[in-house]
Amino acid sequence: MRILGIDPGIGRTGWGIIDKTKNTPLPIAYGCFETASTLPVPNRLLLIHQKMSSLLLEYNPDAVAIEELFFNTNAKTAFAVGQARGVILLSAAEQNKPIAIYTPLQVKIAVAGYGRAEKEQIGKMVKQLLKLDTAPAPDDTADALAIALTHAFSFRKATDFLIASKS
Amino acid sequence: MRILGIDPGIGRTGWGIIDKTKNTPLPIAYGCFETASTLPVPNRLLLIHQKMSSLLLEYNPDAVAIEELFFNTNAKTAFAVGQARGVILLSAAEQNKPIAIYTPLQVKIAVAGYGRAEKEQIGKMVKQLLKLDTAPAPDDTADALAIALTHAFSFRKATDFLIASKS
Repeated sequence: MRILGIDPGIGRTGWGIIDKTKNTPLPIAYGCFETASTLPVPNRLLLIHQKMSSLLLEYNPDAVAIEELFFNTNAKTAFAVGQARGVILLSAAEQNKPIAIYTPLQVKIAVAGYGRAEKEQIGKMVKQLLKLDTAPAPDDTADALAIALTHAFSFRKATDFLIASKS
Repeated sequence: MRILGIDPGIGRTGWGIIDKTKNTPLPIAYGCFETASTLPVPNRLLLIHQKMSSLLLEYNPDAVAIEELFFNTNAKTAFAVGQARGVILLSAAEQNKPIAIYTPLQVKIAVAGYGRAEKEQIGKMVKQLLKLDTAPAPDDTADALAIALTHAFSFRKATDFLIASKS
């Protein structure tokens, strides 16, 4: 089972692809794409859509995992991230990919074992779980891999799993 | 000049198309499309994208006008509207349409002449300005036409005008 984890943002979106084979997660590819703040928002969304569509076509994951919105932020940030996230969900739905959503708490517990783990701890655990030489950078990439790992560890829970189908 | 005004939402998106000819705005078509709250969000975004893309193809507007995000809302609402708005901006950018953004204050002043106009007043003014038999319903449709009218009245101001090009 191949999983694409996404940490969405209008300026920077982290992505990470892992294969889950017999409970051992294997890193396939990961990275982070950026859009320049000098571009109008519609153009930035166009770039995010293009990049997401390319990733889905190239790696053909069985599922996409993405973080739940966190509501302890201000409305301006929520709007900006929401616009990027909407385009990312659309990209996955267009290619008929199932989408799983996890809260930041679920991700921290799944990857680090406790809910108050810091960014640095998440990066270390991702490195260890995927047997990487170094922790992935930037944080957005590490977070995306952490979300993919969360799905690999917990996707039995059907309630976490939204099926997006082109009906 | 043909203008498509949009009042975005995840559940309900108002739209209105007007032609501006020699300073007289003419209504061409308007309405509101809905997505069921029982559908997963990615499927709702897919429907919004399909509907927006169809409207743009069918009516081929010269510009799309949309309201600025208003930040006096909570982060949860901002996220939900933001996701829909992101997909709407993407749809316009994909068809290389210029996008103009107006604040709710700009819309109220342009259409009703003062910044504290109520929803009902906006509906009445839209009816009057477009010589309609009745005020458009629901409010989302009236608001979308009000945004289109705002653009018809104010698009000389190049600073309000973001060009979204497929560069």
